[in-house]
Order: sequence, then structure tokens, then C-alpha cells
Amino acid sequence: MAPNLCRRRQWIKLCFSLVSIVLCCYASGVFSLLRSGYTTRAGSDEPIKSSSLRFSRKTGGTGRYVVREAGQVWPKPQHQVSTGDVFVLSRDTFNFTYAPGSHRCEILDLAFGRYTEIIFSIDEAATGSKCDADTTCLVVLEVSVKESCKGASPHLGAKENYELSVAREGVKLKTDSVWGALRGLETFSQLIYRGEHGLYTVNRTDIQDFPRFPHRGVLLDTSRHFVPVKYILQNLDAMAFNKFNVFHWHIVDDPSFPYESIAFPELSKKGAFHPDTHVYTQKDVRTILEYARLRGIRVVPEFDTPGHTLSWGHGQPSLLTTCYTKTGKQRGALNPVLEATYQFMGKLLQEIKDVFPDQLVHLGGDEVNFACWKNDAEITQFMEKRGFDYYVKLQTYYVQRIMKIVESLGKVSAVWEDVAAKGQEGSVPKNTVIQVWRPGKWAQKMAQVTRHGLRTILSACWYLDLISTGEDWPPYYRCDPHAFNGTMAQKDLVLGGEACLWGEYVDWTNLLSRLWPRASAIAERLWSSQDTTDMEDASVRLGEHRCRMIRRGIPAQPLRPSACPFVPV
Amino acid sequence: MAPNLCRRRQWIKLCFSLVSIVLCCYASGVFSLLRSGYTTRAGSDEPIKSSSLRFSRKTGGTGRYVVREAGQVWPKPQHQVSTGDVFVLSRDTFNFTYAPGSHRCEILDLAFGRYTEIIFSIDEAATGSKCDADTTCLVVLEVSVKESCKGASPHLGAKENYELSVAREGVKLKTDSVWGALRGLETFSQLIYRGEHGLYTVNRTDIQDFPRFPHRGVLLDTSRHFVPVKYILQNLDAMAFNKFNVFHWHIVDDPSFPYESIAFPELSKKGAFHPDTHVYTQKDVRTILEYARLRGIRVVPEFDTPGHTLSWGHGQPSLLTTCYTKTGKQRGALNPVLEATYQFMGKLLQEIKDVFPDQLVHLGGDEVNFACWKNDAEITQFMEKRGFDYYVKLQTYYVQRIMKIVESLGKVSAVWEDVAAKGQEGSVPKNTVIQVWRPGKWAQKMAQVTRHGLRTILSACWYLDLISTGEDWPPYYRCDPHAFNGTMAQKDLVLGGEACLWGEYVDWTNLLSRLWPRASAIAERLWSSQDTTDMEDASVRLGEHRCRMIRRGIPAQPLRPSACPFVPV
Repeated sequence: MAPNLCRRRQWIKLCFSLVSIVLCCYASGVFSLLRSGYTTRAGSDEPIKSSSLRFSRKTGGTGRYVVREAGQVWPKPQHQVSTGDVFVLSRDTFNFTYAPGSHRCEILDLAFGRYTEIIFSIDEAATGSKCDADTTCLVVLEVSVKESCKGASPHLGAKENYELSVAREGVKLKTDSVWGALRGLETFSQLIYRGEHGLYTVNRTDIQDFPRFPHRGVLLDTSRHFVPVKYILQNLDAMAFNKFNVFHWHIVDDPSFPYESIAFPELSKKGAFHPDTHVYTQKDVRTILEYARLRGIRVVPEFDTPGHTLSWGHGQPSLLTTCYTKTGKQRGALNPVLEATYQFMGKLLQEIKDVFPDQLVHLGGDEVNFACWKNDAEITQFMEKRGFDYYVKLQTYYVQRIMKIVESLGKVSAVWEDVAAKGQEGSVPKNTVIQVWRPGKWAQKMAQVTRHGLRTILSACWYLDLISTGEDWPPYYRCDPHAFNGTMAQKDLVLGGEACLWGEYVDWTNLLSRLWPRASAIAERLWSSQDTTDMEDASVRLGEHRCRMIRRGIPAQPLRPSACPFVPV
Repeated sequence: MAPNLCRRRQWIKLCFSLVSIVLCCYASGVFSLLRSGYTTRAGSDEPIKSSSLRFSRKTGGTGRYVVREAGQVWPKPQHQVSTGDVFVLSRDTFNFTYAPGSHRCEILDLAFGRYTEIIFSIDEAATGSKCDADTTCLVVLEVSVKESCKGASPHLGAKENYELSVAREGVKLKTDSVWGALRGLETFSQLIYRGEHGLYTVNRTDIQDFPRFPHRGVLLDTSRHFVPVKYILQNLDAMAFNKFNVFHWHIVDDPSFPYESIAFPELSKKGAFHPDTHVYTQKDVRTILEYARLRGIRVVPEFDTPGHTLSWGHGQPSLLTTCYTKTGKQRGALNPVLEATYQFMGKLLQEIKDVFPDQLVHLGGDEVNFACWKNDAEITQFMEKRGFDYYVKLQTYYVQRIMKIVESLGKVSAVWEDVAAKGQEGSVPKNTVIQVWRPGKWAQKMAQVTRHGLRTILSACWYLDLISTGEDWPPYYRCDPHAFNGTMAQKDLVLGGEACLWGEYVDWTNLLSRLWPRASAIAERLWSSQDTTDMEDASVRLGEHRCRMIRRGIPAQPLRPSACPFVPV
């Protein structure tokens, strides 16, 4: 190809670049890398299993640190076959379109625009390729969506499967639903790399893909620190790049109440860090919901009660139990013996139902401090009357009443594992989702919860706010939500898991760099097949994926000494 | 003051704001905070020792998490007296100027412009105060510099003392040198806070200040990851905000050689991650040096040898010892028995002398891997001839020869503690600076090194690349470079210390948020008096300082659940 290129006047500059690249590659040992086992991308038409597409990290030269683009997909598709045949793409000629008979909708129209920007993001002037007789130029990706997608919203169990074929005749993406189409577009964008001569290149590839788990989430905590909307949106982008599909919004907690409620505006007026600047208005919430929907991401709001509610007390003082201790008057958990509490919660949950479309509402229920309940005469009396001999029973009473409200609103409850304490599993509706978070014996907890027929999601091994020096993604990667003793039926009750980034030491200054690419390890565990366990392969692919995220504007932190093939300008 | 303001038409808007603020303060418990012990800023003319200027963190309301501006200075000045008298400033009327007879220079001219921007940075439209009859408006800061400062460069032992007086008549800043003036301007900028009605406010204050240690550094590693110039400059800003005065530039190491040498261009051409994008050109270096100089920051370059030099071998292969092990040919430390090595180093050090003006050159000398030396016949022969019975002696031989070159160039050597191993202290010139870095027995090492009359800087307890969950600045804050057994004369040999941010897991994506405000703890230990040990006071001041850095553009990470009184827009 090179001599051909050199004959043409318009390719002279490119040819120079090519010669430089060749010389540079020679110097940095890339050629010896190619010789020593890396699959060359030209010539051979031999099919290559995606698992054999890997880098050697042991070649000499400084090149060993430089992350090379190879178009490897993260999370790894369920089935992928690629060959050494390569095609190129150019912004000028490439188009996304619908196959005849496919459903069409705004979600995909917008995605076409977004992925055009993502694929042809930088260095266009330097590397943009024109199609000519010497290169096989792909000019179209044709999407075929079976189900209507107009005004669709993602939901638990929505189909995300897709089939992608990248071939000489063009790219074909076939899916049942629009959500699968979004996942397929993401995969396609990742297959493209800057190949020889810096051209946008993609290998002949066939992929059949689907998620292993339907619930793949990231939890952000906007109470311990306020996170401005733009960082939440950027994080939704990063989630889409990793095929996460649930934003678990731990929106309020003890330190602050930033949600601007319609029914109870005092909650944020008095409970937010600042009533004007540190709040999520209804417009903000709609912005976030729509941004997420367009990326196939559900937003599950968490309004954690009866504990973790100190900030609620500023705007709604009578909600909290008041008690007197050595250090004076204190406020504890919501008061579960007052009818007013349930009236308030009913009205709030009605609003939550109206504002947040997802079927799931997270009710929290973790770490209830019983201290104030113990010091309240009315509560003691109430318990005696009902025969509650310990405080968990009172908590269960509270949670049952709240769950009934949720049920009456046509919603489904999610709660932290505390609510499904041993012996209490029967107290919650069968469709409740139990989130397992306590480290240590989480496998036993998963077994216990599913034994009682309850659905569950795992977070115990994925608390990303916990940090340590070094490359810490391997334990996240190795943690498997099915790694507990249970029947197939029990395993089927595992909906997935969530990476949790609690906010004590995280705000907009470090949120994205701390979360990514560490959460990516969890993304692959939740999407890819259970036997995707090759750490060396994952390590190389994750290195490329990290650089990919950086190129797309996510300041994902480094995994190890390395260099992306570009620096921020 | 409020009624007065309300009478005037142009103040109506401000008056409304005032009423809102009063109501808001009432709601959030700020007034109870004032009543419960916080020093009110109006009325009293009683002098307040700066150490008593502190927040209560135990007041109720969500206000407990919101960082309030109070104009507390970080690092804490040696002597400060402030009163409750307050003055206001306005961008329209405030000026920096020279006192009659003061030396003048570009360094200060530029600093005047910089601090105008810093002080009147945001919310100008909302909070800018006009001077009128009802407020005492400060309109000038007059700097008096005794020593000529034209073309000056910071150097070890440069005077940084200053006297600052903020009074009704104006602000007076008196210093011996321009460097003291820069420190004083920084202090002045920190004294200003958004007070009542959002006005730029400063209390009547007298400060006499000087650093406890002359060498207060931050080490960045640009070899394990390339750090683009703009992030290095931003970090120099952050250093100036914390009165750090040394940028220890660990510029090259095993993974890459980004320094574009004039004499040996092949070193970066072949040893950088990329010869065009991942390098510091001579122009880049000059940019960094000048940016640092204008902020009173020395740049001490480190060219670590004879170990940590694998990246040098790509451009200068004969430099490294080659050996053969089970896994094949390997390269080790610089070959210390070849005359060519010293010729090369002589030429390189001559260039370093010309490029980097600081008297100190850091020669590294740490963690030499003797494996390849042991496998080289020529080296074995050389050692036998000289009677070297172990490899440290060969290392000492190498270091001595390199230090002689440094000496002949009129420079002073700094090295890691490895070079001053027990029994080897006499092998280095008396003016050598030994950097103590090994954790554990660092106090013994400081004692040993100073006992031999060598100067030292401490880093052992300040490796900020080591991270853990939670509020981790207190141990950095508590670590004192004088905390070892030694005479006064020995203590006098402690020049200071350095916060080290090694680059394995750090690049531009997380460098600033990981370093700040953790390095600020070290800044105060190195600047403020030895008895500045009140953790509660430090905690509150550090909280304000962190928000201050954020306002100035440094994405310093949070210390704990909190909110700065502003969010990024």
C-alpha cells in the first residue's frame, strides 16, 4: 500500500508520516514485538478468536510502556471472531443509518451523532483517511431494530443483546431493542483504532453479544459532597463506555439533602449545604434522567430511611426521633411510631414515583442507629404494646409499612441487606431487591437471601471509595456475584451488582479519576461471560480502554507506569 | 451599617442580599455559632492571637459541614495578631504599589497583577464592594523591598522573612528580599475573605513571618508518567499558595527519558514514551524555570544514576552494563568502570549546569541493582585491581567521580540516603545534601548523617504516592524533621524536607487532586514554628485552605464530608 500512496501528490505528507512511523516503530522495538508473536493486522485472513488478540508486555524498548491501540473491546463481548482483514473509515464518507424496516427513534438518531464524534474525535487533520481504490473503505453502519423505540425508557430486563458484523460490504448491527443497539454502537466504536499510517482502522469482525447480568450499576453519593450536574453527566458517559446500565443515585443522607422536593421544599432549603447552589432542582433531575435514558441507563433514586436522615430533620424536624443523652439533645432515625411519619413518607414517595420513572425505588434501610429509639418513652410504650422485644422488629415494622406504600404506587423496593437480616427475610415482598454490601461474609448473605427467593445485587466487594496504593483492580475483577453456594434457581435471583463510590472523600475534584478505570473491572465482570478470567489479557485490554476513556474526555487514572499514545493539549 | 445602606438607592439590591443572608444564617445556625464562641468580626478591638481564631465544628445545623471563609493563613505565620476591626477592599479602588525608596522589579510587577486576580477572583458582580463613608476601605498595599531584585533567582537560604501590617492607613509589607515580598503577598491574599454582605473583608492584622526551614520542596516524577507542562505550571501555582520553594524535578528514570538534551538528543528521541509528544523541550524547561522563578521557587533537577537509568540505554546503549541471565540479555546500572561513562556524564552535567540555574543538582544514587555488575567480567576485574571487596565500594567510586565533576562545575550535589550508607559518609563532599527517604528508621538516619556534618532533607514520612482511605494528612502534619536525637548543631544541618509524589499511579488525571491538600500539611510543618501542633485548629484552617485552592483553580480533593461555599460552574 505504501508505494501506491507515495505516487499520489495528496499522499506525500501521509507517506512521510508513514516513513517516520516505520522508523520510529523500528527504534522502539514494535517490529520485534510483531515478529515475536503479536498478530499482524495485514495479510492473513485466518480467523482469530478475540481471546488470542493480546499484547505481549515483555518486549524490550521503551515501547513496553506505551499503550497501543488495538481495537479491543471492554467489556469483552460474549462471542467475537476477528480476522486480520482490515478496513478503514473516514469521517467524510462514513454514515450511520437504519436498515430497511428497522424501527427509528430519537435515541438512535442522537446516538449516531454522538458516536460520530467519539469515533472521529481527534487528530482528524493528521490521520483522517480518504477512501481510494487501494483501501477497503467502510462507509455505512446499518442498524436494524426489531422493537419500537419511540419514547422508550430502559428498565430491568430490557433486551441488550446485539449482533454486529463488520465486513467488506459494510457494518451491520442487528438488535431486538434500541438498548441493544446502543451497546452495539459502543462496541463498534471500540473496535476502531488508529492503525498503520494513523488511519481509522477496523478488523473484519463478527460479534454476538449480550450481558451476563441485567443490573450493572454505579452508585454515587451526592450527600457527603455535592456533585455538580455536569460531573454526573460526564459519569453517565463513562458508564455508557463501560456498558453500565444503572445509576444508583444515593441522593440524600446525613450530611445534606440536595434534592429539591416539590412537596417538601424545606428539606433542601434547610438541609442542603446551600439552598441555591448545592441543590438538584427538578430541572437538574430531568436533565440527568434524560441524559441517562438516551444512553440506556436507568436512574434508581435512593432515599435512605429510617437512618441516615439527619439532614431531613432541618426542614422537617418532627420526623426525627429526639432523645437526650449526656451531651444534650440529639436527633436519631425517623420516628416509626408516629402516623405523621408515614403520611410524610407517602407523599414523598408519591413524588418520587412521579419524578423518577424507574420501577425500582431504593429505600436504604441500612445502619439504623437505635440509640434515640431506646431513649424515647413513646417508642418504648409502642413496642411493649406490640410485643416487639428488640429494635430490629420495630425497624421491620417501619420498613414493611414503607414497602406497602411503594407497592401501592406500583413500584418495587430495593433495600440494603440490613433489612433482610436472618429471620426477617419473610417480612419483605418477594419482589424486593436486596443489595448486599457488608464485606467478609457476603457469599453467605447472597446464599441466605436467595434461599428465601429474594432477588439480590452485589456490592460488598466493590466499594471503590476504599483505596490503597498500587494496581487495585484485580480483586474487583475477580469478585464474581455467583461465587456462593446455591442452586441454579438461587443464582438466577442475582440481578447483578454495583460499584459504589461513597462520598466521604470524593467530590468533583477526584470523582472521575478515582472511579475510572477501577469501575471498568466491575463492568466486565457484570457483562462478560463467567469464564472471562484471563488477568493478563484483561490487563492489556484495560490499559487500552483507560486511554480510550481519556481520549473521550474521562480523566481515568493510570493503572501503572504507562503512556497513552497522546497527551492532553 | 445595614439601615444606612438601605437608605441609599444604589444599595437596595445589596440590602436585599443582606436580609437574605441574615435569614439564611439564622436558618442554618450560623448565629448560634457566633453566640456559642466564634469570635465576631465586628465591634471588638480586642487583639486576638491567631491561634484562637478557630471554628467550632460542633454547632448544629447543616452548617457544620459548610466551610466558612475566615481569612486564616496556611501555613500559619510565625507571629500574627489580628483584631476584630475589619476593612473592606474593592477591585475598583485597590492597588499594589512600591513604597518610596523600595527596589522595584518585574517579579513584583507581575505578582501585583497575579494577586489582583487571585484576590478579586470570582463573584465580583455579586460581592464587589464600593468604598463609601460607612466602610473603611483599604485602597493600597505598599511593598518595601530592601535588596535589589532585578533578574533575581531564588536560591537556598534566600531571605523569605516579611512584615505585614493591615491597618486603617493601608497595608504595608516590608521585606529584605523580593522572595519575602512574594510570601507576604500570598499571606495578604489569604487574609481576605468574603465577610458580611459578601464584601471582600480583612481584619486589622500584624504579622512577622519567616520560614522555619529554608528547603521546602515537592517532588514530581515525570518518567513513570509524562506530565504535560501545563500541569507542572499549575502545580507551581499550588506550591506558591503553600509557600513551598523547591520543585524537585525527578525528570528521568527507568520507564522514560522525557528531557530533550542538547548534547545527547538521542536520549529522548529513543528513550521518551514518544519523541515528539512526550518530551520536555528546552523551551518547555525554560517556561517551567521562569514560571517557578517568578514565584520564588527553585527547580532542582534530578538525573538519577547509576541505577534507575534503563531509559537512558535506548539512546546511549553503551552506557549501561550488559549482562546475561537465565532470561537472556539484560541491562543494568551505568557501567562504572568505563571512562566513556564519565565523559558522557561530564558533558551531560555541563549541560545541566547551563540549563538549570539552581546551585543544587540531584544525582539520585538510590536503589542501585548490582545484578548486572556482578555478572560483568570487566567490572569484576576492575574491583579486584582496586581491592573493592563489595559493590557499595564500586558505587561509592562512581558517585565520588560524578560529584567531583559537579564540584568542578561550581555546583553542589544532592543524593538519596543510599549514598551515605553507614561507613561511607566520608566519601562525599561536606556540602552534599542527603535526602532521607527510607521509612522506618529515618530518625536514626537523620542523626547518622548530621553527625557526620552532612546537610539533610527529609522525605521518609512524606511519600504522598502512598494512599489509604480516609483523612490521611495528620501523620504528615505530625512528622517533624527535627524529631531525632542530635545536638543543636546537628539540627541546624536539616535544611527542610520534601513531599514526594512518585509517578507509578499518578499522571495529569489525578496529580493535583492527589497532591493537594495533602502536601499542604507538609508545607505548614516546614514553614511554621515547631509548636504549631494544634490538630483541631489545623484541621479547620486546612479546610478553608482547601476551598481557597479550589477557588484558585487547583482541584484539591476533599478532606472529609464538606462543602466549599461555592461550586464549580
